[in-house]
Amino acid sequence: MEKKDYQYINHINSPIDLKAISRNELPAVCDDLRQFIIDEVSKNPGHLGSNLGVVELTVAIHYVFDTPHDRIIWDVGHQAYGHKILTGRRDQFYTNRQFKGLCGFPTPKESEYDSFGVGHSSTSISAALGMSVASLLKEEKNRNVVAVIGDGAMTGGLAFEGLNNASVNKNNLLIILNDNQMAIDPVQGGFTQYLVDITTSRTYNKIRFRAANLLKKMNIITDNNIQRITKFNNSVKATLSNQNNIFEGMNIRYFGPVDGHDVDGLVRIMSEIKNFKGPKVLHVITKKGKGYEPAEKSATVWHAPGKFNVETGERNTCVPNNPTPPLFQDVFGKTLLKLALSNEKIMGITPAMPSGCSMTFMQQELPDRVFDVGIAEGHAVTFSAGMAKEGLLPFCNIYSSFMQRAYDNVIHDVALQNLNVVFCLDRAGIVGSDGATHHGLFDLAYMRCIPNMTIAAPRNEIELRNLMYTAQQPDMGPFVIRYPRGKGTIVDWRQPMRALEIAKGECLKEGEDLAILTIGTMATNAQKAIEQMENEWEISVAHYDIRFLKPIDEAMLHEIGKKFKQIVTIEDGVIQGGFGSAVLEFMSEHNYTPRLKRLGIPDSFVEHGTPEELYNMLGLDAEGIAKSITDWIGCSKNLKHEKLKV
Amino acid sequence: MEKKDYQYINHINSPIDLKAISRNELPAVCDDLRQFIIDEVSKNPGHLGSNLGVVELTVAIHYVFDTPHDRIIWDVGHQAYGHKILTGRRDQFYTNRQFKGLCGFPTPKESEYDSFGVGHSSTSISAALGMSVASLLKEEKNRNVVAVIGDGAMTGGLAFEGLNNASVNKNNLLIILNDNQMAIDPVQGGFTQYLVDITTSRTYNKIRFRAANLLKKMNIITDNNIQRITKFNNSVKATLSNQNNIFEGMNIRYFGPVDGHDVDGLVRIMSEIKNFKGPKVLHVITKKGKGYEPAEKSATVWHAPGKFNVETGERNTCVPNNPTPPLFQDVFGKTLLKLALSNEKIMGITPAMPSGCSMTFMQQELPDRVFDVGIAEGHAVTFSAGMAKEGLLPFCNIYSSFMQRAYDNVIHDVALQNLNVVFCLDRAGIVGSDGATHHGLFDLAYMRCIPNMTIAAPRNEIELRNLMYTAQQPDMGPFVIRYPRGKGTIVDWRQPMRALEIAKGECLKEGEDLAILTIGTMATNAQKAIEQMENEWEISVAHYDIRFLKPIDEAMLHEIGKKFKQIVTIEDGVIQGGFGSAVLEFMSEHNYTPRLKRLGIPDSFVEHGTPEELYNMLGLDAEGIAKSITDWIGCSKNLKHEKLKV
Repeated sequence: MEKKDYQYINHINSPIDLKAISRNELPAVCDDLRQFIIDEVSKNPGHLGSNLGVVELTVAIHYVFDTPHDRIIWDVGHQAYGHKILTGRRDQFYTNRQFKGLCGFPTPKESEYDSFGVGHSSTSISAALGMSVASLLKEEKNRNVVAVIGDGAMTGGLAFEGLNNASVNKNNLLIILNDNQMAIDPVQGGFTQYLVDITTSRTYNKIRFRAANLLKKMNIITDNNIQRITKFNNSVKATLSNQNNIFEGMNIRYFGPVDGHDVDGLVRIMSEIKNFKGPKVLHVITKKGKGYEPAEKSATVWHAPGKFNVETGERNTCVPNNPTPPLFQDVFGKTLLKLALSNEKIMGITPAMPSGCSMTFMQQELPDRVFDVGIAEGHAVTFSAGMAKEGLLPFCNIYSSFMQRAYDNVIHDVALQNLNVVFCLDRAGIVGSDGATHHGLFDLAYMRCIPNMTIAAPRNEIELRNLMYTAQQPDMGPFVIRYPRGKGTIVDWRQPMRALEIAKGECLKEGEDLAILTIGTMATNAQKAIEQMENEWEISVAHYDIRFLKPIDEAMLHEIGKKFKQIVTIEDGVIQGGFGSAVLEFMSEHNYTPRLKRLGIPDSFVEHGTPEELYNMLGLDAEGIAKSITDWIGCSKNLKHEKLKV
Repeated sequence: MEKKDYQYINHINSPIDLKAISRNELPAVCDDLRQFIIDEVSKNPGHLGSNLGVVELTVAIHYVFDTPHDRIIWDVGHQAYGHKILTGRRDQFYTNRQFKGLCGFPTPKESEYDSFGVGHSSTSISAALGMSVASLLKEEKNRNVVAVIGDGAMTGGLAFEGLNNASVNKNNLLIILNDNQMAIDPVQGGFTQYLVDITTSRTYNKIRFRAANLLKKMNIITDNNIQRITKFNNSVKATLSNQNNIFEGMNIRYFGPVDGHDVDGLVRIMSEIKNFKGPKVLHVITKKGKGYEPAEKSATVWHAPGKFNVETGERNTCVPNNPTPPLFQDVFGKTLLKLALSNEKIMGITPAMPSGCSMTFMQQELPDRVFDVGIAEGHAVTFSAGMAKEGLLPFCNIYSSFMQRAYDNVIHDVALQNLNVVFCLDRAGIVGSDGATHHGLFDLAYMRCIPNMTIAAPRNEIELRNLMYTAQQPDMGPFVIRYPRGKGTIVDWRQPMRALEIAKGECLKEGEDLAILTIGTMATNAQKAIEQMENEWEISVAHYDIRFLKPIDEAMLHEIGKKFKQIVTIEDGVIQGGFGSAVLEFMSEHNYTPRLKRLGIPDSFVEHGTPEELYNMLGLDAEGIAKSITDWIGCSKNLKHEKLKV
């Protein structure tokens, strides 16, 4: 790694070093930190825009607060790069999001400066409130707890629940509302409008000049940020106070809005308010991508841009010479549009992930039929249920790990009423560098136990299309289609679609000694493993793609149960209660007694890395599968042909 | 059934009959409906207070709106008795909440007037928004969709997510905010305070007389409700408009507050606003228990009072002569207090159910250490996680079916960080008359697949105490204790507590031919079934209480796997992926090949009835268990002694 000369950052090994820098140098520190982040993320892809947006906020927080004694909880946490760099992880930062490297999100395992593990949106207020209340109960004087939450995350109901509760309990919580009008995509919803109103309302405009003058006199603001007025002490506050500001109305003191890129102003106001008792909100206006022009101009693209050339702003989006298989996401998005064009009942619902799940294709063509409901997975599902109750056919796309947030909505609002909602679970299985918080490993287990569900996983892009086509049929009830992040395997995927028979799997390969049953894209690794095994061993392996976890293909399982004494199931989900268990349950119920090996994710959380690295670690790549099976067979008395070929 | 002469109600067979009544007679209709509800609920227990509170609202809604063409969604739905009575179910109402009788909640299965199935709190805005958007997309002119939601339910994040989204999409949703400052217990949180502020704020007070006079002139209000002012049309609205009212700020038109017991006023304002385009909130002030003095005075007790004498207000709380076993809830509540008194790290957290789960015992003695966080299960869990991260030991009590709402919080905020949170899952298994929405049947399956969890179920009250005691030990990580609603089996339950060994089950009875494995209170039914079987058949049955679903007692399972060729598992949860599957997985992994029968809840939703009726229906009472097992054994070649004794 070349080591660039970062004048300040290279000398900050902990926030103590930062605090030693004089306050008037902080803007230069921010420039330095910003450049460091741009340089690093250009080489080692990660989140860019959100991190550039909070450079000043990060520096100010660590300048003012006494971390790690004071607790900082970064909501979502993909904006915490600056925090990591300033808290002793600068020299490891080149490993960010890499296998065995730094985690892309704060995690207490990594550093005591990471006060609370984050990854999913909207958790910070609840967690911070618990921590602040605990601190007071333990009579730890002077411990500040700060939640830094974006306006996007504020649309999540959990954040509101936390806010609602914050005013009741004794606590000194500081909520910093990082308002940039963006999640990954532009933030949706009335609350955002409400924040805009606070910022621009007539009330504020009317008193702006008066207040601004007052603030200038008090040396709180400069001409540079005169547009952003701040109420920060009681007298000014009284001037600007608005009884019906929702925060104030909920007995949470409100300060702001303030310019989130004025590091000196931030230091000043945080120093002023940090020792105020009781819950308080500091409303900070920032710009995603701040300080790097391409990222400022196109915030969604530069949320996580991949590698790029810092000078030219050119992103590494090289088109390979040979056509490559598409992303599952694009297959989903383009297929949804195609289906929607010929079926007017189809609606697209996404909780703030239109670009991530590629619902943008439909959004552009049929904007009235795509609903980005904000970061609000529970609402996305119940909203879909309402639509389905009225005869529409919502395709509700939610990442597998985020669907955990809508579990009751699936059970109580959809399955119990057997409504026709198509749940498209994107990013199922191992997702890669986002790591433990984002892998979609539980869905097979947590969905399977719900009555009325149809649950399917395509083994490739063509099947994804066919399953989406199939889900359109009348009275299907809730229909889950789970598929992974990233590329498929089929270049020529735009085949005519056809309906698949429900509860019907497919024998991909006949065999005699052993049956391998897979679900979803694990079929690919299994196919390679089978080739490998049959090349190396004198063994004949059958391969069945179960396709439907529920209802399961009983005819096929009977056939397998009758024919095979050795069965292996492979799934990219937890093995407790998942696909393998479903097969095991079937075999047990029907008095088949094969030896059965279940391969899948073991009973522990999986960290970050590339999917290849992680599947390798988990023994779920082709080599791992082959090894597990041959080891298992090797010790079996039932193996017919155990000698090696060579 | 004696049939009382209800002057109006007896002649209302559908809302059409109601609409035929002249408007000035509506107060009398309300009196009649109120009396009907009181009479019925006094004989056949159910929810009282909430239903009395919405009598006028219910009559007004059905008078003004054209149901079932217009859609009414009752949030939670336990306040929909009047709705049921007015929509053709008067004569079946005596079967309310009974096995095969009317459901205690609206359900489309029962009536087309029940537009959407409800039961859990805070779903109505999301569902109604979906329905309203659907109606516009389908170009159904003049269909109104109304969500009736309490202020308690408004503390649920899902409601906020719905509200946030309501302003974005094209819809004509009407949200009636039924504000009575109560859930089952008094509503907690800043938002409630905010609603109080709206109702009593200086702004309103200042213009009250002016506005009231105006309204009087316009014949909108009478002197009786002069305290409750209404802004209802543009001119008045402009007078009262407050840009920063949170609803208006979110682009949702706000009307109110209005007197929810003035049926004429309600009819008037609903008629006025129902055809206004766009989303709107009507804020209605009601009193829980309205019109029945005992219920007005003590709202929590009279939420669901059991049988009572209408004249005297005496509740049927007879104390039996002989001591009876306690409620599991009381054992929990009293034990929690006892533990908390000697362990200052212990905190009690409940999402709005302090009385339901009996956390009131601790609340009274140690109010600073009990946190009623509002109807906000997700927040309850993440808030607990924050506390645990700071070294406290939260006992977070959430009903099993409501824990579905905090699933991601359990995984992402607690389990992933391996925090010491004790999850007390009340009302696990069959809950009885609350029915399908409230049974706690999925928890074993959905919890078991999460890494780091310890999951236990006590078979009786003493074990519940011991498990709570055990959960206090250091570094236990997330610890689930699930137990049922209702009475236990042990009168003398106040035994000294002791720590139980983790992952250690108990052999309750030795036997030779067959092993029965149970979890939790299913042990009782199994014991009776074993007695019955051993009396009737020449068979020797062993009985093991597994106690810990996870980590499971491997030593015991090895012993069982080695000894028995026939194993039966019994659980009061869904059989896909639950306890039986865990045993099956173990046996498979260790190459035991017993015949194994899993008894539990089959793959369909279970309706309401008494637990006895439902367990009987499900074949999980002693008789059902005995029959299942003997049938299963009867066809087994492995049975050693198949002849009947007599």
